[in-house]
Amino acid sequence: MADYLAQAHSYPVLPRTKPGDLIDALPPSGPEHGEPMSAILEDFRRIIVPAATHWNHPGFMAYFATSASGPGILGEMLAAALNMNGMLWKTSPAVVELEQVALDWLRQWIGLPDPLFGIIFDTASTSSMHAIAAARERIAPEVRTEGAGAGLVLYTSEQSHSSIEKGAISIGIGQKNVRKIPVDAEYRMRPDALAATIEQDRASGLRPFCVVATVGTTSTTSIDPVEEIAAIAERHNLWLHVDAAYAGAAAIAPEFRHILRGCERADSLVTNPHKWLFTPVDISALYTHRPEILRRAFSLVPEYLRTADDPRAVNYMDYGVPLGRRFRALKLWFVLRYYGRQGLAEMIRKQIGWAQELAQQIDAHADFERTAPTPFSTVCFRLKGTDEENHQVLERVNASGEIFLSHTVLRGKYSLRLAIGNMQTTRQHVQRAWELVQAGAGR
Amino acid sequence: MADYLAQAHSYPVLPRTKPGDLIDALPPSGPEHGEPMSAILEDFRRIIVPAATHWNHPGFMAYFATSASGPGILGEMLAAALNMNGMLWKTSPAVVELEQVALDWLRQWIGLPDPLFGIIFDTASTSSMHAIAAARERIAPEVRTEGAGAGLVLYTSEQSHSSIEKGAISIGIGQKNVRKIPVDAEYRMRPDALAATIEQDRASGLRPFCVVATVGTTSTTSIDPVEEIAAIAERHNLWLHVDAAYAGAAAIAPEFRHILRGCERADSLVTNPHKWLFTPVDISALYTHRPEILRRAFSLVPEYLRTADDPRAVNYMDYGVPLGRRFRALKLWFVLRYYGRQGLAEMIRKQIGWAQELAQQIDAHADFERTAPTPFSTVCFRLKGTDEENHQVLERVNASGEIFLSHTVLRGKYSLRLAIGNMQTTRQHVQRAWELVQAGAGR
Repeated sequence: MADYLAQAHSYPVLPRTKPGDLIDALPPSGPEHGEPMSAILEDFRRIIVPAATHWNHPGFMAYFATSASGPGILGEMLAAALNMNGMLWKTSPAVVELEQVALDWLRQWIGLPDPLFGIIFDTASTSSMHAIAAARERIAPEVRTEGAGAGLVLYTSEQSHSSIEKGAISIGIGQKNVRKIPVDAEYRMRPDALAATIEQDRASGLRPFCVVATVGTTSTTSIDPVEEIAAIAERHNLWLHVDAAYAGAAAIAPEFRHILRGCERADSLVTNPHKWLFTPVDISALYTHRPEILRRAFSLVPEYLRTADDPRAVNYMDYGVPLGRRFRALKLWFVLRYYGRQGLAEMIRKQIGWAQELAQQIDAHADFERTAPTPFSTVCFRLKGTDEENHQVLERVNASGEIFLSHTVLRGKYSLRLAIGNMQTTRQHVQRAWELVQAGAGR
Repeated sequence: MADYLAQAHSYPVLPRTKPGDLIDALPPSGPEHGEPMSAILEDFRRIIVPAATHWNHPGFMAYFATSASGPGILGEMLAAALNMNGMLWKTSPAVVELEQVALDWLRQWIGLPDPLFGIIFDTASTSSMHAIAAARERIAPEVRTEGAGAGLVLYTSEQSHSSIEKGAISIGIGQKNVRKIPVDAEYRMRPDALAATIEQDRASGLRPFCVVATVGTTSTTSIDPVEEIAAIAERHNLWLHVDAAYAGAAAIAPEFRHILRGCERADSLVTNPHKWLFTPVDISALYTHRPEILRRAFSLVPEYLRTADDPRAVNYMDYGVPLGRRFRALKLWFVLRYYGRQGLAEMIRKQIGWAQELAQQIDAHADFERTAPTPFSTVCFRLKGTDEENHQVLERVNASGEIFLSHTVLRGKYSLRLAIGNMQTTRQHVQRAWELVQAGAGR
């Protein structure tokens, strides 16, 4: 593991493998008798690693990077050895209480108000689905018993993550009841359009119940105007959920604290330590001011049967779908302690700085243009040319094995997207990516 | 980690801690500057471990035991180091293809038919929620767009796991539309009652859409008559989901293959390698014959995640709520290879044998009685006395620090419940538990 992490840069970031190659390289059935560990590890090296996309590679700049930091990996190892299941306080006080501690430390660092209930899920998609279900429970509590809930409407921007729409569909809201509010020139939800749509829906007899704002959208990392959205949500009695899965971590640096302005008025907020907090996947933190509503949505223990349990013994299973709960807090706690607030802030600050430098270089180049503002560490840009030319640039860069970029479509145009977030990435890697992009464009 | 696993028996299985002890022992805020790893590990030993419930302890016989086997832990460590996210084939062919390989090996070993689509979720609760959503998509496809879905009815036994009811509530079916079908004297769903209830609901204009059978219920590990239930589901065009989270693994032993009889006719089935397959939490395997319906329920491919389609390149994100997907298959693949089919079957067989021996001892004891049949490795029994006396027995056994049992309520009576499933448990530990129970009862 240490060798791999030290040498991550030496692998091609994208594997040279075709669909089915790994499947075809392994036997069609498992072994009748046990095999020696040496044979298993040999196949791991020979077959698994060559089919890996190296998220630890310093040139991994596609999607939002994640980092397997040393302390994070160590936390995960110890959690696997202890192998506890924190569904109830009794089934492991350590799992339950460290989850409260680690999430409260993080809450303080990103400047959210006290008290705030925190709970860990696997991914932001799952966290947001739970937030939307809590929103439904608040506005339409009869749905829990009766089902259905016709006419409930959810609002989010046309730039929000697909998981919001998926969460709404999953819990039975209906795709046609998800309103995609238009964005402004900087890809931020337009509060005027939000308010007008809510009013129109109310006039039609529909039931607005939830609005989801995003701090750090997936395509461009734009920041919705949460304060104005919160005011609208309050006026119309909607649950406000904030998706800060990627960018929330940046608020650890005091100069970025402002990105969460207005979030103190949100009913719930999700941020993912497995994205920009150097903690291995998976760990997503959902915060809410209204844990009693989340519990009402998911607990199967009727209030009148609730025992006079110790109020400090939290039974997390009552707050969501998964019953079993892995000791995910341990890796986060290791990361928070090992780096400290300033250490984490400094890593994030540097990465944002490299992105800003690249943004300036792109702006200064006659043949390239940025396609969105760069508030964080993700840069959207394109060659001033056709979509096909830009697609070719992406293919050439990704074929290098040195750098892996992704793309997005902004105002109908194909854009390259370079996201910095891996601990192994340095300024030099970002500059090398820029060289490869220029070379790929023949510039 | 090695020391801990070798010495797991030396800890009290239940920690001697009060709610809030761990929280109070840690600072209220995280450190401003990073701390040395030695200090973190020292606190881990001093504060975290003493608050742990030791699921690895050989005396852990409460709930369904899980095991952190060596190869399982090693797989988890390597997965944390690689830190890949298999949301799309492209984001890691290794994650996606090894998931297909490991789940197909397991499918063969438990005797399910080919082909069968497999997908990993965190827990059986999440797997079952997805199965219920697929059932809805099949019978009421308009719900995805329109929402609501009034009158949809789900059927499961009164002994099924709470996750089935929770899954239905979560996706908006409504608690009153979950029918709890009565069980027979051996806690198995009564097919006659199921058929009658469905017919009554149809006559009332309701829309039966899903039936969930259980192989190995949580309280008593009873086995629903899946063949008869499948025939009813087929006659009424219902989706049949089978919850074999705990007991499915037993089918690896040929003499227990029969427990899954009828499951080849199910639309979906869940079994949890993190329960009785010696793989660390979390890993739950959902199988379905109808992956296209699961995908229709959940797919929502945005532009920035679109990749060229190759039929062998599975994009698992399209089949469920979570977008991010940890490399959970690796630990399972390590376990399947290291122990082989016969090795796993032998461990399971032995554990069932110890439970059968204990069952006979209880039957032979004048002062105790079994309260349910013992088809697997879980024994339900009670002192012939009051509920309070039985509760006292449980408290005394659990206070020993040597053994941790749970309880259940069967036909209104308090029952003790002893579940064997941990690799560290031996015949001697089971016999010791029986001694402690007798001593606790003053017998």
